[in-house]
Amino acid sequence: MLTTGGCPKTALSIKDALEALEGRWKLLILFALSTGPKRFKQISKEVTGITDKTLSKELKNLEANKLLKRNVYDTFPPTVEYSITEHGKSLEKVMEELHFWGLAHRKEIIGN
Amino acid sequence: MLTTGGCPKTALSIKDALEALEGRWKLLILFALSTGPKRFKQISKEVTGITDKTLSKELKNLEANKLLKRNVYDTFPPTVEYSITEHGKSLEKVMEELHFWGLAHRKEIIGN
Repeated sequence: MLTTGGCPKTALSIKDALEALEGRWKLLILFALSTGPKRFKQISKEVTGITDKTLSKELKNLEANKLLKRNVYDTFPPTVEYSITEHGKSLEKVMEELHFWGLAHRKEIIGN
Repeated sequence: MLTTGGCPKTALSIKDALEALEGRWKLLILFALSTGPKRFKQISKEVTGITDKTLSKELKNLEANKLLKRNVYDTFPPTVEYSITEHGKSLEKVMEELHFWGLAHRKEIIGN
C-alpha cells in the first residue's frame, strides 16, 4: 500500500486527519462552500439530509479547526455567511480521491 | 476547489465514500492490514485506542463492504486471519492524501 505501509508515524497523521474530518458531514459542508461563501440556509439545502442542529454543531467545529470562517455583516438585520479558508481548500486532493474512490465503491458494491 | 466544485453528482460519490469509511477506525484498520494479513489481537495492538468490541464491529462492516477478507484456517484450534482485498487496497491514494493533509493540519492547528 503506502510506500511507508504500516509505519506508525503515517498512522498518526492519518488519525489526525480522520479526527478533524470525523463523521459524514464535514467534507460535504466544505464541498458546498467550495463554490463560494454561503448562508446557513443555503448550506442546509445543499447538504442533503443534515439537520439544523447538526449543521450548527459542525460549523462551529469546522471554524475551530480553521477550515471555515464565519463572517458577520453589519446589515439590518445582521447577515452571517460562511466561507472556506485556505486551510479548508487544502482538502481538495482528499476530496478528489474520495470522489474517485466513491465512484469505484458504488460500482463494486451496488454494481452500477 | 474540485474542477467540478459543488456539483451534486460529485457530492454524491463523496457521500458514498464517507459512509463506507465512516468513523475514525476503518482506514486505520485497513492501514494496519496493508503490511500483510493479521490476527485480531495483532490488529487490536496496532490500532492504538480501539476497544475489542469496536474492532469486532468494524471488521464485520469492512468485510460487508468487501474491503477485507476473513480467512479461517483448519488448524487446532482454528485460526482466523484478516487480509485486505484489492478493493481495500484501492484506498491507497485516499490514505496518502489524508496522510499529507494530516501533517499539514497538525502544523496549522498545533503549530509543530
